[in-house]
Amino acid sequence: MRDMNVVLSNDDGIYAPGIRAFYNAIKDLANVQIVAPSEEQSAVGHAITLFDPIKTKKAYKNGKLLGTAVSGTPADCVKLAICELCETPPDLVLSGINLGANTGISVLYSGTVSAATEATILGIPSIAVSLCTFTDPLWDTAETIARNVFKYALESKMPSDALLNVNIPNLPLEEIKGTQIVPVARSRFNEIFHKRTDPRGNLYYWLDGELEILEDRKETDAHALNEGYVTITPISFDLTNYAAMDKMRGWNVTGP
Amino acid sequence: MRDMNVVLSNDDGIYAPGIRAFYNAIKDLANVQIVAPSEEQSAVGHAITLFDPIKTKKAYKNGKLLGTAVSGTPADCVKLAICELCETPPDLVLSGINLGANTGISVLYSGTVSAATEATILGIPSIAVSLCTFTDPLWDTAETIARNVFKYALESKMPSDALLNVNIPNLPLEEIKGTQIVPVARSRFNEIFHKRTDPRGNLYYWLDGELEILEDRKETDAHALNEGYVTITPISFDLTNYAAMDKMRGWNVTGP
Repeated sequence: MRDMNVVLSNDDGIYAPGIRAFYNAIKDLANVQIVAPSEEQSAVGHAITLFDPIKTKKAYKNGKLLGTAVSGTPADCVKLAICELCETPPDLVLSGINLGANTGISVLYSGTVSAATEATILGIPSIAVSLCTFTDPLWDTAETIARNVFKYALESKMPSDALLNVNIPNLPLEEIKGTQIVPVARSRFNEIFHKRTDPRGNLYYWLDGELEILEDRKETDAHALNEGYVTITPISFDLTNYAAMDKMRGWNVTGP
Repeated sequence: MRDMNVVLSNDDGIYAPGIRAFYNAIKDLANVQIVAPSEEQSAVGHAITLFDPIKTKKAYKNGKLLGTAVSGTPADCVKLAICELCETPPDLVLSGINLGANTGISVLYSGTVSAATEATILGIPSIAVSLCTFTDPLWDTAETIARNVFKYALESKMPSDALLNVNIPNLPLEEIKGTQIVPVARSRFNEIFHKRTDPRGNLYYWLDGELEILEDRKETDAHALNEGYVTITPISFDLTNYAAMDKMRGWNVTGP
């Protein structure tokens, strides 16, 4: 078991407590290399850095080496770890533990999920883990769940063509109702742009908003998490809508 | 027809020739409002700006008003246009014309596609258009194709749950072989990190790489574009991998 090589990243940055919690959850089960953004990178989606250099440095806390801090996005971290920093390709990439749920359409904006997506594109199985709170995180719960999910990977049960997106309710372990394997809830953000004026009289906006669930299905990630279940969703990166494709046969746009 | 209200954005920035070409292609068919990044935003994926203000200003070229320049990502532009800048929600959002193909896994990193994705999430049909070249773009070809695609939207033929991702070969119109409705090619980037040292002796990396196609299917966006067809791919944003879900029934990760 000790021979499993794992890269651990996140989007909250290398100094965030969540990445430490993930490390603690699995450190006796694998060789863990931490490669994470030097600063918080939430809502960066699947951004990568093409037009700037990516800088790395060793990150320490209380004199102890944490890992490699990267001046880039979560996807940058995972690319760099797999292609350049690891001596051999890792067996698994983990991302998190993120503070705040990544359910519904949030999955698309999530840096936590994008780190895992990047790994899966590069052929490495991966798991993104989020804890559904911004305050008073119950790390004990999160660590236990993360460790249990990780054991499925140890037992080679990971799907080959999907990353796993795990969301954990912020409850004491004994209050969690169980595990649900559920799809991403169809949803959108109800955007609010706060419109303000800067000290020099220039207009600016600040984005705010709430997730709105747009569907009738009861068994989705957002619903199940809200009801107190751990949710696991396999995420694909073939974005083709095959059903819509069938309806478009016969389109011809190349006439003059 | 004149009553159709369209928002036009891109990721190459409001001063890019491609957005001007798209505008020229459709300006007599719709009311077009341009809301685009003030600077190039390639490879930003589906990033949104949460932790900084978003500034807007009127953009002019040769004394003529182009539209609204936004200090944010393509997804920011579309959110802001739909939720704040447009008096009534637009009927359609267009993105492009991008320089460089957006096929295969590039779709996931593409700011051009993310602008269209954002619109579709917010319930507005959308079309992303890219021209497969970085040099000597044949804008006449691209404008004709973009206009023809747009006419399908005018005739209310857009799918309701997918955005359209259109790629155009950089060929004279008469050399284009036709239109293909095709899936996204399974692919990855073969990453190369150029490793360098800055003038102060610090290590940095610069990302480079080439798209590698990973599949046997001949009818994909990357193949068809390469063979000289215009490709149209409906893109979904339900990322759930339903097939993998079925294989994971019975997982339980909430034990102690």
